[in-house]
Amino acid sequence: MIESLHFKKVAIIGVGLIGGSLALVLRRKGLASEITGIGRGLPNLEAAKRLGVIDSFTRDIADGVKDADLVVVAVPVLKIADTIRQAAPNLKPGCIVTDVGSVKASVIEAVGPVMPAGAHFVPGHPIAGTENSGVEASFPELFIERKCILTPTAKTDPAALKAVKGIWEEAGSTVVEMDASVHDMILAAVSHLPHMIAYTLVNTVGDIEDSGVDALGYSAGGFKDFTRIASSSPEMWSDICAMNKEQILKTIDAFRRRLESLRELIEKEDLSALKTEFDRAKNLRDSLIKANPKETA
Amino acid sequence: MIESLHFKKVAIIGVGLIGGSLALVLRRKGLASEITGIGRGLPNLEAAKRLGVIDSFTRDIADGVKDADLVVVAVPVLKIADTIRQAAPNLKPGCIVTDVGSVKASVIEAVGPVMPAGAHFVPGHPIAGTENSGVEASFPELFIERKCILTPTAKTDPAALKAVKGIWEEAGSTVVEMDASVHDMILAAVSHLPHMIAYTLVNTVGDIEDSGVDALGYSAGGFKDFTRIASSSPEMWSDICAMNKEQILKTIDAFRRRLESLRELIEKEDLSALKTEFDRAKNLRDSLIKANPKETA
Repeated sequence: MIESLHFKKVAIIGVGLIGGSLALVLRRKGLASEITGIGRGLPNLEAAKRLGVIDSFTRDIADGVKDADLVVVAVPVLKIADTIRQAAPNLKPGCIVTDVGSVKASVIEAVGPVMPAGAHFVPGHPIAGTENSGVEASFPELFIERKCILTPTAKTDPAALKAVKGIWEEAGSTVVEMDASVHDMILAAVSHLPHMIAYTLVNTVGDIEDSGVDALGYSAGGFKDFTRIASSSPEMWSDICAMNKEQILKTIDAFRRRLESLRELIEKEDLSALKTEFDRAKNLRDSLIKANPKETA
Repeated sequence: MIESLHFKKVAIIGVGLIGGSLALVLRRKGLASEITGIGRGLPNLEAAKRLGVIDSFTRDIADGVKDADLVVVAVPVLKIADTIRQAAPNLKPGCIVTDVGSVKASVIEAVGPVMPAGAHFVPGHPIAGTENSGVEASFPELFIERKCILTPTAKTDPAALKAVKGIWEEAGSTVVEMDASVHDMILAAVSHLPHMIAYTLVNTVGDIEDSGVDALGYSAGGFKDFTRIASSSPEMWSDICAMNKEQILKTIDAFRRRLESLRELIEKEDLSALKTEFDRAKNLRDSLIKANPKETA
């Protein structure tokens, strides 16, 4: 813990599940004297104030960040840079700006030119979330025993990085620093690719439905678990495709090569090689559960 | 319900989750006077008797089916025909033989030549299961509010079909009759393809792990849900690949074409078309949950 980790004024731009939960952490841990919420939807901002997540709110970004020591940008990845551009004229010298976007390299690239001199950007990504969104879903325990990845660059201010690291540690997360491109490659593999596959699978079955055969009516629990992530926000995921395009294309290609070779084994009826493939996957999957007994199998 | 749905002697070959649970249904509903379990592993058979699932057991298939009015073949799909071949010499005239295999056309084809004249084969597939296997996992409610698919052919004895339908209705299932090839196409889409994809995805991430990057350490709940089915039995799934090869290859190809076109949209950064694709999948997935509120989302 950092002795002096305290902010007089914090501005949270985007008071949803992540922004709201982080505000609750700052409050509970006494890390902020005042928290202002900034957003577009009045009902959500009013709910945030009523729930005690924020002290005040505004829909004007530049107005809201005035005098803030810490600005948390918790908006969709495609909007992060433009949000900071709007905030820029009023960011005070020494102000720390951090984001929670699930793509990092392209965010860093877009944010670079719009950050005013004297303010410090620390790119971050807490690996946390639930099925629900909006401030009503927020709770301060969201980040406990989760990982938070920070992707500083050579230009990142060391004191600002230390402060943001301290915040996420106070939230209960394990903070890991890595290069933005490594982050984007890892997230493409364990999150972005599975979403692309789930959407594609559901639409493949949808084609069969369209041909007049009720296939979905015969799906069991496995299919429902498997396709749960296909219920994720289409807008958020088309944005992520744009922002992490190169890494997503790479993982799709790696997946296609593997599927192609599996297809060949099925075609050849090479049961022994198929079993070896399935065994490898089962062992990996089982080890993942053993490493995280907290998670459900 | 059929007035006269009662069997003097039932033989269950393979007293695992499905076979054991069906035995418990027959017992609870008073449909059988005597139930014999047939299997290869003594400890499982002993447990089945101790738990009251069966009255007696033997490891000799031909011996166990002697005098049986109903034989339930609940062994892995690849072994169904050979199991019936071993039972054949002792199947009494009028005996009903039914299976619970998750592939139907190739099972019907393989069973045809080994069924003795006078005994009646009714191909079936209860769409039910849990994470657990073995007789200890069996319970009579397993089939309640599930679908059971029967795939009779032109040769199937109508009275035998009616009896097997009655058993599954007594178990609490909705019985649907369809052509074996339609069954195999539907199951390839909603079960076999998802398993192939889950195994392939986990192995794709495994390749990244092998390259020295800890990707799995950053996976969240979505990845774990998505890949749960990759923990399924490698042996069972390589067998299913062999038995439903043509339909699985077809659905893999349909999936590959869809993934290819999604890849193109990402490459072109056509966010509007991507959103349309994701919307379609989300609507289909959400409708599936609405249609089955009993299931978790």
